[in-house]
Amino acid sequence: MSETAIGHYLLNRLSELGVKHVFGVPGDYVLGFYDQMEHSSVSHVGTTREDTAAFAADGYARCNGLGALAVTYGVGALSVVNPIAGAYAESAPVVVISGAPGTNEVQNDPMLHHRFGPFTFQREIFERITCATAVIDDPVLAFRQIDRALAAALRHRKPVYIELPRDLVEQPGVEVAAPPDEQMEARDDAALAEAVAETVELLAHSKSPVVIAGVEIHRRGLQKPLLDFIEHANLPVAATLTGKSVIRERHPNYLGIYSGALSNDDARRVVEDSDCILMLGMTLNDIDTGGYTIQLNPQQMIRAAQGDVFIRHHRYPGAPLNDFLTALNRTGRPRTEALPRFTTGPEATNFPEKDRAMTIARLIGRLNAAITPDMMVVCDTGDCLFAGVELRVHDQTEFLASAYYTTMGYAVPAALGAQVARPQRRALILVGDGAFQMTGTELTSHCRQGLAPIVIVFNNRGYSTERFILDGPFNDIAEWQFHRLGELFGPLDGYDAPDECAFEQALTAAVANTDTASIINVRLEPRDASPAMQRLGAHLKARLGRED
Amino acid sequence: MSETAIGHYLLNRLSELGVKHVFGVPGDYVLGFYDQMEHSSVSHVGTTREDTAAFAADGYARCNGLGALAVTYGVGALSVVNPIAGAYAESAPVVVISGAPGTNEVQNDPMLHHRFGPFTFQREIFERITCATAVIDDPVLAFRQIDRALAAALRHRKPVYIELPRDLVEQPGVEVAAPPDEQMEARDDAALAEAVAETVELLAHSKSPVVIAGVEIHRRGLQKPLLDFIEHANLPVAATLTGKSVIRERHPNYLGIYSGALSNDDARRVVEDSDCILMLGMTLNDIDTGGYTIQLNPQQMIRAAQGDVFIRHHRYPGAPLNDFLTALNRTGRPRTEALPRFTTGPEATNFPEKDRAMTIARLIGRLNAAITPDMMVVCDTGDCLFAGVELRVHDQTEFLASAYYTTMGYAVPAALGAQVARPQRRALILVGDGAFQMTGTELTSHCRQGLAPIVIVFNNRGYSTERFILDGPFNDIAEWQFHRLGELFGPLDGYDAPDECAFEQALTAAVANTDTASIINVRLEPRDASPAMQRLGAHLKARLGRED
Repeated sequence: MSETAIGHYLLNRLSELGVKHVFGVPGDYVLGFYDQMEHSSVSHVGTTREDTAAFAADGYARCNGLGALAVTYGVGALSVVNPIAGAYAESAPVVVISGAPGTNEVQNDPMLHHRFGPFTFQREIFERITCATAVIDDPVLAFRQIDRALAAALRHRKPVYIELPRDLVEQPGVEVAAPPDEQMEARDDAALAEAVAETVELLAHSKSPVVIAGVEIHRRGLQKPLLDFIEHANLPVAATLTGKSVIRERHPNYLGIYSGALSNDDARRVVEDSDCILMLGMTLNDIDTGGYTIQLNPQQMIRAAQGDVFIRHHRYPGAPLNDFLTALNRTGRPRTEALPRFTTGPEATNFPEKDRAMTIARLIGRLNAAITPDMMVVCDTGDCLFAGVELRVHDQTEFLASAYYTTMGYAVPAALGAQVARPQRRALILVGDGAFQMTGTELTSHCRQGLAPIVIVFNNRGYSTERFILDGPFNDIAEWQFHRLGELFGPLDGYDAPDECAFEQALTAAVANTDTASIINVRLEPRDASPAMQRLGAHLKARLGRED
Repeated sequence: MSETAIGHYLLNRLSELGVKHVFGVPGDYVLGFYDQMEHSSVSHVGTTREDTAAFAADGYARCNGLGALAVTYGVGALSVVNPIAGAYAESAPVVVISGAPGTNEVQNDPMLHHRFGPFTFQREIFERITCATAVIDDPVLAFRQIDRALAAALRHRKPVYIELPRDLVEQPGVEVAAPPDEQMEARDDAALAEAVAETVELLAHSKSPVVIAGVEIHRRGLQKPLLDFIEHANLPVAATLTGKSVIRERHPNYLGIYSGALSNDDARRVVEDSDCILMLGMTLNDIDTGGYTIQLNPQQMIRAAQGDVFIRHHRYPGAPLNDFLTALNRTGRPRTEALPRFTTGPEATNFPEKDRAMTIARLIGRLNAAITPDMMVVCDTGDCLFAGVELRVHDQTEFLASAYYTTMGYAVPAALGAQVARPQRRALILVGDGAFQMTGTELTSHCRQGLAPIVIVFNNRGYSTERFILDGPFNDIAEWQFHRLGELFGPLDGYDAPDECAFEQALTAAVANTDTASIINVRLEPRDASPAMQRLGAHLKARLGRED
């Protein structure tokens, strides 16, 4: 036996892997672990709810490489099923630590509080939304179980689940030799070489090649190799919506977002006119394909994703994205043609105009001028996400969203985690009124941590994405005076922005105040919508087979 | 084929079973069903989040016999896992209706938004927290699948799950003959008769018999037979904490709560001194046993629960509670001894005292005098629940809580459902500050529905139950100005109550204002606690093996 208690071992390993903060709400089955955390190099960051702790851990993981939360059994763990399913779908490596009744408590199958079924059920649920689960029930195996779960999270970039019975957290475990590195993604060197050679050849003989960079670039940390490749090869590059900001959006080679009907005009034109489209880490989900509205000719497609390279109608298995990109960098020759100048994010002209009501298009245009290099944009689900297609953020990985799983209420808590991970960055949070009513009061934890995000509430008094698909009174919601939220908790400055002049004043004041969180209630017409959402809404409506 | 669309059939069946309101948040996979709801006799009640919709449906089900919610796939359904597990643990029959991608959309296994894994996983998760699941995928079987799921909810008093692919909701189904009544609980008439005879004999020969009535009395709707039995037999009766209010708490035979260390003094003395304890519908969970601190002699116990009757060390299988109670009513002879007078709920004397800070004990004492017969108490988890041991409510089933599963954040949304089900009743909501920070903003939906609950926030700036088990900074939370919540939405009157005089004014005004919701911020010392929690906390701490 070692001298190290199982709970401390887990905390030490998290700390070694860069996890210095664990989010969560305490509860009696996890209190012992919380107490250990107080005596460790890992800090607890409290949230008001468990699901927001999980969103915060997701935001932290995306900025930091790994995130964690600790919750109690049943009521705590089952409250994070949705955000953890989202972390799985979005490839955010989050460690879920759930307390549990002690092994000494469950032997006669007692009806303990927070219990909802056989004691195995909680793990069985998490097996469906994580890439590895470990129920610690034997001190001899505990350290190894913990190591394997953490390794799986890092390898697959997916959440994992560790269940800690409360009588074991203070028991010493058994040190084991470090496990051999588990098999990384399968690689077939011959296939890789052939795929690279064919790609180089196709690029060299194409007239108008273009790159689409997808979300896997971010999740596998390949932004730098991508940038090197783009600059070396001198190619134009678009990002998908879920991959937004994998390349600096003010980079001269950057085209904008290509996601079918959701695309920027420039990006759509260049991509769909291209005779050779190299898709790097692009996932063919319904968001990034704009509801399957992409118009690309498979004869002109090269796609590296999920460990394989697909060229036209054949596939090279065993060609991981990382290795493929590295090899391309070494092999390809730069194109000599000068790139055309692409439009950057549109800026609103003559903003503010007196007595002019706020619209989404001009709001985004104004924000494009306001975003500074020290900001990161954290965006919720709804029209703020689609409107975000027109936003240009500065640095890499500075746009965080649940862009594929599209769970509402992501942004405010995820921004908490992102800012804790990157204290030098300020979050600009874009969120709809419906999403803010779900989790917006988690802003109290930003205030408690001394953070100073700027929250822009897109207040159109309802679920506007759904209004564009099928409208009814069910899409209307209660009106909140979001700018008055500072009456409830703070310090928090609030601003009402019914028109452009009021918004201009509010934005200026909020940007200037770097000490305190700010919230701006942007009042929009219920039928106002971003161009991207209008395009997508028309398509989704057609898929439902309905007309207005 | 019938003329009835599958979605309409479900709505019709719900309406026939008394479900006139469906809670939930719309989303694109369930919009078609929402549209059908607009053209049905069932109304949609919007909530800000999906989990609060599920708590509301739980509160509705407890008052109405059945409740329902409708949510979208993935992000919606997975957000209700915790409240539905709670409804399972607490036996509240709630119908979860989840939209889903159309059967025509999933054939090539596409990466649709809101997806988190194989399309079967969502049902597999719900199979672990409901008593029946149905994925509608064949119009020929749809009506039958719906009927069976609803029958299971009613029979088992547990939640069920119905998944509705969006392309099928408007398709006509096939009418089937009403299914034969499925087997109810197994009954063995000979065993039942023998159990009744032995019980009558034991009661007749005992000196100090007592009844403990548990939560199954409420969930099986047996309050009236229980009352008849108690009055006919002239027996004193205690309730468990999860069964609180199964008998009118101002009934002369009522002793108070018996739950081991959580008990009222009177109840504990009478029950533990009794020579014959008849336990009707009492579940031996760790709450109702006060953390297994009940001190009862098995030689003196008769327990009818979960279909069986246990007398001392033998068991009569096949003796359902309903039949057992009916038979006892017909058979037993009344006791002739006069019952002693039991103390009713303590009332605070000389309330308010000038400059006296608020304490939980005197708060409860004051509420005992304030509760009127038109109120129902909806109580959250935490010390408000344990303090509720001393509350005396008027009528039957007028105390609602997640008393066994003990999920925080239950009360405000559950009270929404309870009041929608019983519009003539006013909710008195008891809730801690931590629980209110979880779901309290759902009060916006009370306001939107024109309801006028009175919310009493037990504000002790932290998770006080956990403070009594193992304290640390993780038990402290941010301070909210709960009485200022009406600045955010309304109409909502708020009152700050730092002392007794302020509370008295606030309570008087809130009770008098039956048009508008009211919230009272009761400021308590962090270490103040109800006597019941102090007893339970000491016990839980001992179980953790820790001392202050």
